[in-house]
Amino acid sequence: MADHPIAFHFDFISPYAWPGAVGIEKLAAMHGRSVDWQPMLLGVSVMKTMGLPPLMETPLKGDYIRMDVPRIYRFHGIDYRPAVPDFVTSPFVPARLFCWMRSIDPVRATDAARDLLRAHWSEGIDISDKANAVAIAVRHGFGEADARAAPDDPAVKEMLKDACNQSVATGVFGSPSFIVDGELFWGADRLPQIAWKLDQA
Amino acid sequence: MADHPIAFHFDFISPYAWPGAVGIEKLAAMHGRSVDWQPMLLGVSVMKTMGLPPLMETPLKGDYIRMDVPRIYRFHGIDYRPAVPDFVTSPFVPARLFCWMRSIDPVRATDAARDLLRAHWSEGIDISDKANAVAIAVRHGFGEADARAAPDDPAVKEMLKDACNQSVATGVFGSPSFIVDGELFWGADRLPQIAWKLDQA
Repeated sequence: MADHPIAFHFDFISPYAWPGAVGIEKLAAMHGRSVDWQPMLLGVSVMKTMGLPPLMETPLKGDYIRMDVPRIYRFHGIDYRPAVPDFVTSPFVPARLFCWMRSIDPVRATDAARDLLRAHWSEGIDISDKANAVAIAVRHGFGEADARAAPDDPAVKEMLKDACNQSVATGVFGSPSFIVDGELFWGADRLPQIAWKLDQA
Repeated sequence: MADHPIAFHFDFISPYAWPGAVGIEKLAAMHGRSVDWQPMLLGVSVMKTMGLPPLMETPLKGDYIRMDVPRIYRFHGIDYRPAVPDFVTSPFVPARLFCWMRSIDPVRATDAARDLLRAHWSEGIDISDKANAVAIAVRHGFGEADARAAPDDPAVKEMLKDACNQSVATGVFGSPSFIVDGELFWGADRLPQIAWKLDQA
């Protein structure tokens, strides 16, 4: 059977992205699918396109998310050791670094993106700090000087903008989102429905 | 073991409420729990308290929901035959009727609420139409003249306002929401996490 990759759209600063990544990679492996990692920015999709305020500043929802995030990690059996309190981080360094790595070697870039998410959410390593993010890129064979320069490179900034626009164009608005055979699923809590969809395919 | 009821907060006009009801009643029965049905209004929690626009008018999200709702019914194996197109209904008749029935007999009121949700979402019967809603109340032994008068009774309107305020006060913002042993879960897609929580209890 030909591989029909599952698109995985995520923002590095979304606490739900890492459980989503772990879950979708398990499901994909069970069904002989690959996972196509796609960076996006919630600031673009949710705030700019949808016109909504930041989640953590929304009454009721902010408090819910503070309680819900540790729970979803426990539910998935994933270590929860967030790098920063209250999810306040900038996504630009890791997202641009990922775009740059992807333009060189998508396979190693995905391996690095996985390590970036794990570092930030399970190992307490702040990947908005360029030194931390670059160290992970270097571990996957990318050049240190080029990795340091990438987040400030206008061409790399364009790559991320294009990726965000492409995500929004396919209907993606939240992180994580998954596209399975053309069908959009939003949220790490939709993994059981994705399993059901894959079983039918 | 003493019963610790699961609170089920729902808006009759939420398309996710009916799959949530079916799912939580199954889980509750498996774990020897009862379900405490609590009416709420998304107009109060989401729009007034959270300051967000109506879901169906939010770019990207509206289109997602139009596709997602039929899918979640298929996923749960529940008939999907909505009474009105695009989820545009008024919640006041069924929600006030439920509050009134609850003040008389909570058990029969819950049976009627279940039938109201089923009628609206699986049987194509518009429960914002008072004649349809009252017919269901009558089927559960409530008096027809009183049922007809209830949605316009200021005291019943107050009951619904109090229920909405109580929902918001407990942190509920979406429909359906579930409170299990003091812990809030939002969304019909959280049923697997509720099962996990109940297994631990």
